[in-house]
Amino acid sequence: MNLSEAERAAARVMARCDALAQISESPDGLTRVYLSPEHLQANALVGEWMRAAGMRVWQDAVGNICGRYEGAEPGAQALLLGSHLDTVRNAGRYDGMLGVLSAIEIVSWLHQQQRRLPLAIEVVGFGDEEGTRFGITLLGSRGLTGSWPESWSAVADGNSITVAQAMKDVGLDIANTGKAARAPEEIAAYLELHIEQGPCLEQADLALGVVTAINGARRLSCRFQGEAGHAGTVPMAQRKDALAAAAEWIVDIEQMTRRYGQQRVATVGTLQCTSGAVNVIPGEVELSLDIRGPDDAQLTALLADLLAQGEAIARRRGVTFHSTEYYAINATRCDPELQRALSDAVAQVQGRSLSLPSGAGHDAIAIAERWPVGMLFIRCAGGISHHPAEAVTQPDVAQAVQAALLTVERFAASFTPLAMPGREVV
Amino acid sequence: MNLSEAERAAARVMARCDALAQISESPDGLTRVYLSPEHLQANALVGEWMRAAGMRVWQDAVGNICGRYEGAEPGAQALLLGSHLDTVRNAGRYDGMLGVLSAIEIVSWLHQQQRRLPLAIEVVGFGDEEGTRFGITLLGSRGLTGSWPESWSAVADGNSITVAQAMKDVGLDIANTGKAARAPEEIAAYLELHIEQGPCLEQADLALGVVTAINGARRLSCRFQGEAGHAGTVPMAQRKDALAAAAEWIVDIEQMTRRYGQQRVATVGTLQCTSGAVNVIPGEVELSLDIRGPDDAQLTALLADLLAQGEAIARRRGVTFHSTEYYAINATRCDPELQRALSDAVAQVQGRSLSLPSGAGHDAIAIAERWPVGMLFIRCAGGISHHPAEAVTQPDVAQAVQAALLTVERFAASFTPLAMPGREVV
Repeated sequence: MNLSEAERAAARVMARCDALAQISESPDGLTRVYLSPEHLQANALVGEWMRAAGMRVWQDAVGNICGRYEGAEPGAQALLLGSHLDTVRNAGRYDGMLGVLSAIEIVSWLHQQQRRLPLAIEVVGFGDEEGTRFGITLLGSRGLTGSWPESWSAVADGNSITVAQAMKDVGLDIANTGKAARAPEEIAAYLELHIEQGPCLEQADLALGVVTAINGARRLSCRFQGEAGHAGTVPMAQRKDALAAAAEWIVDIEQMTRRYGQQRVATVGTLQCTSGAVNVIPGEVELSLDIRGPDDAQLTALLADLLAQGEAIARRRGVTFHSTEYYAINATRCDPELQRALSDAVAQVQGRSLSLPSGAGHDAIAIAERWPVGMLFIRCAGGISHHPAEAVTQPDVAQAVQAALLTVERFAASFTPLAMPGREVV
Repeated sequence: MNLSEAERAAARVMARCDALAQISESPDGLTRVYLSPEHLQANALVGEWMRAAGMRVWQDAVGNICGRYEGAEPGAQALLLGSHLDTVRNAGRYDGMLGVLSAIEIVSWLHQQQRRLPLAIEVVGFGDEEGTRFGITLLGSRGLTGSWPESWSAVADGNSITVAQAMKDVGLDIANTGKAARAPEEIAAYLELHIEQGPCLEQADLALGVVTAINGARRLSCRFQGEAGHAGTVPMAQRKDALAAAAEWIVDIEQMTRRYGQQRVATVGTLQCTSGAVNVIPGEVELSLDIRGPDDAQLTALLADLLAQGEAIARRRGVTFHSTEYYAINATRCDPELQRALSDAVAQVQGRSLSLPSGAGHDAIAIAERWPVGMLFIRCAGGISHHPAEAVTQPDVAQAVQAALLTVERFAASFTPLAMPGREVV
C-alpha cells in the first residue's frame, strides 16, 4: 500500500468514524450502547462497508457484526482483526470504531489487489466492550470465546431490562449465545488497532506504538475512621482527623508508586468526607484506590506496600484503616511474535517503534484467553478519550493502516494455516 | 454557698436542662430554633424559673427572655449573666441552656439569703446564638447591643419565611427591634458560663477553666484545578492530579499549624472531587479551610503561610490553586479583670485555675462590642457538643455555680455602680 493509497484509506476511515458518530441515542453527544436500535443501525452500516470491501457478512448470536475475506483456500484459518462499536456516554468517535474501520480498509485493499493470503481475514465489530448499558464488560468478545457466564442473562440495565430481554427485543435469543463462540482452530490470532487513550505516543512524537501487555488492575474501597470533632475546640495534637490521615496516604501512594517504575500507576479517584462540614473535623473518609501495571506479581507487591502504609499511618494517628478489593484483573500479555511483527512494521512506517503497556482494558483481554493477541496503538490528542474531544489525525491513521497491513502480510507469509471447513454466512 | 447548697442548685440545673430538652420541634432529638413555638415555650418556662428566683421578667423586642434582680439601690447598673436557649439541629441539652440556668441559681441563692448587691443582677436567655434557622448568628445578643443590620429583616429560613415575618408570627415587630438595645451605662459587664465544647479541661482533669479570648476565625473555599485523565493510561510523572495536590496541602496545613503553637487550629472539613470516579484522575478538587486562633495578627500570618504553600504546591505540580475567604471574625479578648476574678474564684473552688481560649463562638462576641466580658468554661464529656451525647456532670455544675457566684460577689464588692433609672418590665 503506497502513501497515497494509505491516505485515501485514512480519509475513508475518518469519514466513516464521522458517519458512525451520527448514530447515537442522543442528538447532542455520541452514546451507542449494546442491543440498542443504534447498535443494530451501526451494525447494518458497518456490514455494508464490509460487503463493499469484499467480505461475507453476518451478525453473530450475541450481536457482533462479522465479515470474512476468504484466503487462498476456502475455509482457511482466519486472522481476526477488529475492535468494538459501542461507546461510553457522551463518547469520542474513535475509541473502538477506528480499529474496525481500519481493518475494513486492509481487506478492501487486498480485495482491490485481488490478493488472497494463506489465511482468511475476518473483521469483527464487537457489540459491547465498554459495559455502558449493563455494567458488565466485554460481552461481544466473550461471545466469541464462548465465555458468557449464565448469570449475565439476568443482569438488568438502568430501566430494569435484562440482557435476555434486550436480546429478544432485537431479535436475538439468549439461548443461542453459545452459537457465537468460535472453535479454537478457526482463528489463528487477533490484531486490534486502538487509540492509546494516554499521552505517551504524543509525548514521544510518534504516531504508533506496540502494546506489550494490557495492564492488570486492582480496585479497592478504602476507609479511614477517626473521630469527628469541633473544628474550633479540639487542639491539633488531640485530633483523630480521618481526612488528614487519608491525605498523608494519598501523598505516600503517589511517591511509592513512582518508585515502582514508570509503568505502574495508582489513582485515588474519589474521596468523600462522610457528613463533612467546614467546621467539623472529618471523622470518616471513604476513598477509592485503582492500581494498574503490566506485571501481576509487581502489582501485588505494590498493593501490599500501599496497604501496609495505610495501616501504619492509621496506627500512628490513632484512627483505623480498612480496605476491600472489589475488582481484580490479571495483566494480559500480548503475543511476543505478534509484538515483533508489529514492531517491525511500525519501524518501517515511522522510522522507529515504541513499546508500551495499555492502561485501559480492551477486547483483546477476552480474546487472549483463546488466541494470541497483538495490539497497535495510535496517538490521540492530549491522551484524551471517553470524551467528545477525543481526536486522531488523518496522517496518523494512514500510517496505522500501513503498519497494520504490513503486519497482516508478514503474519500471513510466515503462517501455514490448517484447512478448515467454511463457515456459513448467518 | 456551701457544698450542699451548690449540689442542690446543680441538681436543679440538671433537671431543668432535662425539662428544656423536652421542648423540641421533633420528638426524637432536640431542635429549638429562633422564633419558633418551642422558642416561646422555652422562654415562658425559663421566665417562670426567673420569677421564682425573685426576678422581674420580660421578653425583649427580639425575643430574648430577661430577668432582673434589683441591687441594693433600685435602678442600679447591672451585671449581666446568661447564655442562649436556641440549639443546633439534633443538639445536646447543655450548650447555652447551662449558662442561663446556672445564672438563675445564683440569683435564687442571693434571693433566699435576702442579699442585695451594690449592682443589680440581670439574667438573659438569648433567643438565637447558633443561627440554625436563618443562617445568621448571634441575633439575640446583637439585639441587646442594638447592632442588627437592616438587611437581617429580609433574610429567609428554609421555608422562605423572613426574619420580619417570623417575628410577626410570634407577636413581635421588626420595626421595634431597636427597643431591645440596652444603653451602655445600664450594664457593667457580662459573664457567661458555657460548656467547653473541647477536650482540654477533661484532659487536664479539671471541672472549670477561664476563657482568655474567643478565637478569631477565617473560612475559605479553596480549589485545586488540574487535569482529569484516564487512571490507567496517564503515567504518574505526567499527571496533573488535583487530589494529590490537595492531599499534599492538607498534610502541610496540619504540620505548619502545629508549628504556630498549641492554640491555633486549622481544619479541612470538606473535600469534593468534582465528577470523581474510581478510574479517573481527579481534575478538580474543592475543599474548605477553617483556621482559628486567639491572636488576629498571628492568624493572619498563619493564613498567609498556608495559602503561599498551596500556591507553591500548585506551581510545582502544574495545577492551579484558588482560594476565597468568605468569613472572617476577629478574636474577642476577655476582660483582664474579669479573667482575674474568675481565675481566683476557680482556684478557690477546684484548687487551681486553667486559662484557655475558646475555639467556638459565643454570645460574648457580640456583647464584647459594648461591655467587658468574662467566660467560665465547664468540662464536657469527650469534648463533644452539638450532639445528643453532649454531657456534663452534676458535681462539675455545682463547682461552676460556686465559682460563678464567688466571681459575682467579688465583682460586686469591688464595683461602685452608677445610679440608673429602673427598667420597666415589658
